[in-house]
Amino acid sequence: MAKQFTLYSHAIGPNGWKVAQVLCELGLEYETVLKEFGDGENGMKTQEYEKINPNGRIPALVDHSNNDLIIWESGAIILYLVKKYDTEHKLYPASLEEQALVDTWFFFQMTGFGPYTGQAVWFKVLTGNKNVEAADRYVAEVHRMCKVLSGQLEREGTGWLVLGKCTIADLSFLQWVRFLYRLKIDLETEYPLIHKWKEAMLASPGVKASTVGEIWAPAE
Amino acid sequence: MAKQFTLYSHAIGPNGWKVAQVLCELGLEYETVLKEFGDGENGMKTQEYEKINPNGRIPALVDHSNNDLIIWESGAIILYLVKKYDTEHKLYPASLEEQALVDTWFFFQMTGFGPYTGQAVWFKVLTGNKNVEAADRYVAEVHRMCKVLSGQLEREGTGWLVLGKCTIADLSFLQWVRFLYRLKIDLETEYPLIHKWKEAMLASPGVKASTVGEIWAPAE
Repeated sequence: MAKQFTLYSHAIGPNGWKVAQVLCELGLEYETVLKEFGDGENGMKTQEYEKINPNGRIPALVDHSNNDLIIWESGAIILYLVKKYDTEHKLYPASLEEQALVDTWFFFQMTGFGPYTGQAVWFKVLTGNKNVEAADRYVAEVHRMCKVLSGQLEREGTGWLVLGKCTIADLSFLQWVRFLYRLKIDLETEYPLIHKWKEAMLASPGVKASTVGEIWAPAE
Repeated sequence: MAKQFTLYSHAIGPNGWKVAQVLCELGLEYETVLKEFGDGENGMKTQEYEKINPNGRIPALVDHSNNDLIIWESGAIILYLVKKYDTEHKLYPASLEEQALVDTWFFFQMTGFGPYTGQAVWFKVLTGNKNVEAADRYVAEVHRMCKVLSGQLEREGTGWLVLGKCTIADLSFLQWVRFLYRLKIDLETEYPLIHKWKEAMLASPGVKASTVGEIWAPAE
């Protein structure tokens, strides 16, 4: 039987996995279509795929149970999923005030931690650290943001960013925090609170389910 | 009488103005506190300000009518404002499906258009185009994103990104589109649909009200 959702993703792109993890945590069934970078046959920059996402990026999600509604941008997808399907408020609270608290850290991931970690990996790793000034700029920003995150985990003292439980704010960071191994950041010694937080998320049944049979298993 | 909100902003930081424009469009009264970059007396990187925003950035908003609730990250602030105060759905629709459509473009601004335009201005202008490779990387990305935006305005044919009206998706781009003058992008000739869209937003009474008596008037 056809699954409720189609998720367009990429084997090592953090933002696609982010959505998969939320889908699994909510017990929703989806089929993954893995795309490639560029404009090759299975590329994200093809006319065919740009009908789904005119920005030519993953992730994109199709909800077949809702008139094949297409949503792209991982943040927009996740807010749609929790508003429509998280009726028990497992990952997203009910009150506007608590939602604002979750959204604050959720947007910090979307606008800062994700983009700048991506730039650090590009300059430091993928292009061989040839542009040292740019690599240093972004690696320094990653460390600054890790301190902000670590500070929040310390202030809260619950192991989670807000509300004393795992929300979409925490989950949005998971794949990006995992990605830090590419910058040779040793979380266990440098940012032990972040390490513990990451391990707690990885132990969650939903997160585990999202990676079964899938391709990406980063060497950590 | 004390205003309902305090908005921590910066004279030329687009994201603070973005929030001011939404506040004005919704007819909400606020007082602006302009902060400076760095850790000087009025800086964003001071212990005092980091009690408001541990990420040391603007904007941050305090809602004095709701137990002095503090929210930071412009995306989280704007979603709070429309969910709580846009009861007539002027800037944010009522249905989840239409919200998803708005959120998609809203997050594209937050995660892509804003951060990468910021990086382009940093390398091309603020640091004097000394790192040509990095400047070129981000300026090229800005043009790619302008084409995505322009393509959407063309497909829709209404002068707006979605739903045939001005929403928070459109408003979130306004200050960043204005900021393109720093990259010497001539919108009127290069991206006429974006130029027309920008002018329509600038003509809105709410947007106009947000700039009265304020400091930033970019030379365009």
